[in-house]
Amino acid sequence: MSLITVGTVAFDDIETPFGRAEKVVGGAGLYSGIAASYFADKVNLVSIIGGDFPKSELEYLNEKNIDTSGIEVIEDKKSFFWAGKYHDDMNGRDTLATELNVLEDFDPVLPESYKDSKYLLLGNLTPEVQAKVLDQVNDTKLIVLDTMNFWMDIALDALLAVIARVDVLTINDEEARQLSGEFSLVKAAEKILTMGPKYLIIKKGEHGALLFGEGEIFFAPALPLAEVKDPTGAGDCFAGGFIGYLASTDDISFENMKRAVIHGSAMASFCVEDFSIKRVKGLSEFEIKQRLESFRKLSHFDLDA
Amino acid sequence: MSLITVGTVAFDDIETPFGRAEKVVGGAGLYSGIAASYFADKVNLVSIIGGDFPKSELEYLNEKNIDTSGIEVIEDKKSFFWAGKYHDDMNGRDTLATELNVLEDFDPVLPESYKDSKYLLLGNLTPEVQAKVLDQVNDTKLIVLDTMNFWMDIALDALLAVIARVDVLTINDEEARQLSGEFSLVKAAEKILTMGPKYLIIKKGEHGALLFGEGEIFFAPALPLAEVKDPTGAGDCFAGGFIGYLASTDDISFENMKRAVIHGSAMASFCVEDFSIKRVKGLSEFEIKQRLESFRKLSHFDLDA
Repeated sequence: MSLITVGTVAFDDIETPFGRAEKVVGGAGLYSGIAASYFADKVNLVSIIGGDFPKSELEYLNEKNIDTSGIEVIEDKKSFFWAGKYHDDMNGRDTLATELNVLEDFDPVLPESYKDSKYLLLGNLTPEVQAKVLDQVNDTKLIVLDTMNFWMDIALDALLAVIARVDVLTINDEEARQLSGEFSLVKAAEKILTMGPKYLIIKKGEHGALLFGEGEIFFAPALPLAEVKDPTGAGDCFAGGFIGYLASTDDISFENMKRAVIHGSAMASFCVEDFSIKRVKGLSEFEIKQRLESFRKLSHFDLDA
Repeated sequence: MSLITVGTVAFDDIETPFGRAEKVVGGAGLYSGIAASYFADKVNLVSIIGGDFPKSELEYLNEKNIDTSGIEVIEDKKSFFWAGKYHDDMNGRDTLATELNVLEDFDPVLPESYKDSKYLLLGNLTPEVQAKVLDQVNDTKLIVLDTMNFWMDIALDALLAVIARVDVLTINDEEARQLSGEFSLVKAAEKILTMGPKYLIIKKGEHGALLFGEGEIFFAPALPLAEVKDPTGAGDCFAGGFIGYLASTDDISFENMKRAVIHGSAMASFCVEDFSIKRVKGLSEFEIKQRLESFRKLSHFDLDA
């Protein structure tokens, strides 16, 4: 099934306890688009870049069946840029620089060929931009929205309005607490599920992810890894793997959403193993299958001997 | 199979964001003994109490098939006492008071009837006391050791000596990092498994528990709960449920250890639902079965539709 992912395609400077990378490609749209492309037949990417973004990267995306006709190019401006430094525990990070550049002008116009897509992933952007994309799709089957505390702080009303229009919300545990005013994630989920979405995914980074919906809870662990080099993009790869799997199976039952959460977790586990998109770029079908099997072995048990 | 649990039987003052409890019964020996008693035919408890410890609680233990002949009573002294206050996020806590009282004299002497027990849980105590118990058992099948960062700080050599003599070590994630000097839990586990134990359980509180051994990793989630009133004793109930299940099945294969970790997690999930031993005291077989099933539903998925 056809799928749209919306999000930044950008440059990052990243410093972690395990190294640094300068002016590497990144952005929620890039990470989620690549992750989704391993499962979905075709990914329709919506973004905006400057003249400085390497054409070779776009060609790579096209080879992976990612349609880039929805990426607006502003030749005389620069791409969005983010610089961050991760704490020693890799859970926290400080933003060292944010240059909006082309993002200041982002007014997404979907190509006609995108508009009948059944699956839509709205990556973390201003709620207004997310709403503008929602206004242009015709008849979706599932809309996933990713956002962050920043928008809860400065644009809560606009964010709540867009949250009310989606099917699945993905946020982290602290954001779920902030949005709901509840400390218990179970209570937070109950409250958030009255705001519009039918499903809530709470991302807990190295502690896994929780899926709430239909009165059920499913937990997907994060794969314990010997080396985590760079967490950047893990949440986006999770979201991309999640919706990519759902689009490929065209089945939005809770049972299939569980599988989708595991597929998302698998893509996130690859993502953190190297800087930028290095690790998620060239995965083989066999590697992905093996990784999914690792998740199964990690979490399965028989209650009866 | 016969089982010994060793640990404090004591009084606690507890303050959490959800209430407070004064001079309630607690201690690693009490929590782990009760948790184990739901599975093991008989639990041989080793501890020390003062004349102030209520006889009615000992009678309750005896009714639950917990042998208390290994609990030394020093009539003219007071029981061990701990007072603590949990942070708002319930993950951290401050110790407000520790009164060793009878614990200063603790020189455990195992009753003859205990000495042939096949399963042994050494709850968190000085490594010297743990070693003294080890010296008195005849022919164990599995020894589980619980400890904490405090002993790593002040008695590392003695702790390492006792760790070298056990089969399963249970510590939390920060303690695993401290003991190994490795940040990655995978690398920490690799290192710790060269120190003697064949299995390592890393407890992550509300983020679940990891079991390492035989080149495998198993992850048990914590059950997301609407109400967590008091985390005190959760780790002890986990350890008690874990070894109690192993003793009851007398099967120490990795597959069965997975089940044991789930049984331990189930007992911990009950424990935190109320103060002191209130919730773990009167569980029915049906409640436990239902809780185990909740863990299965929480973590199981089929990779293929």
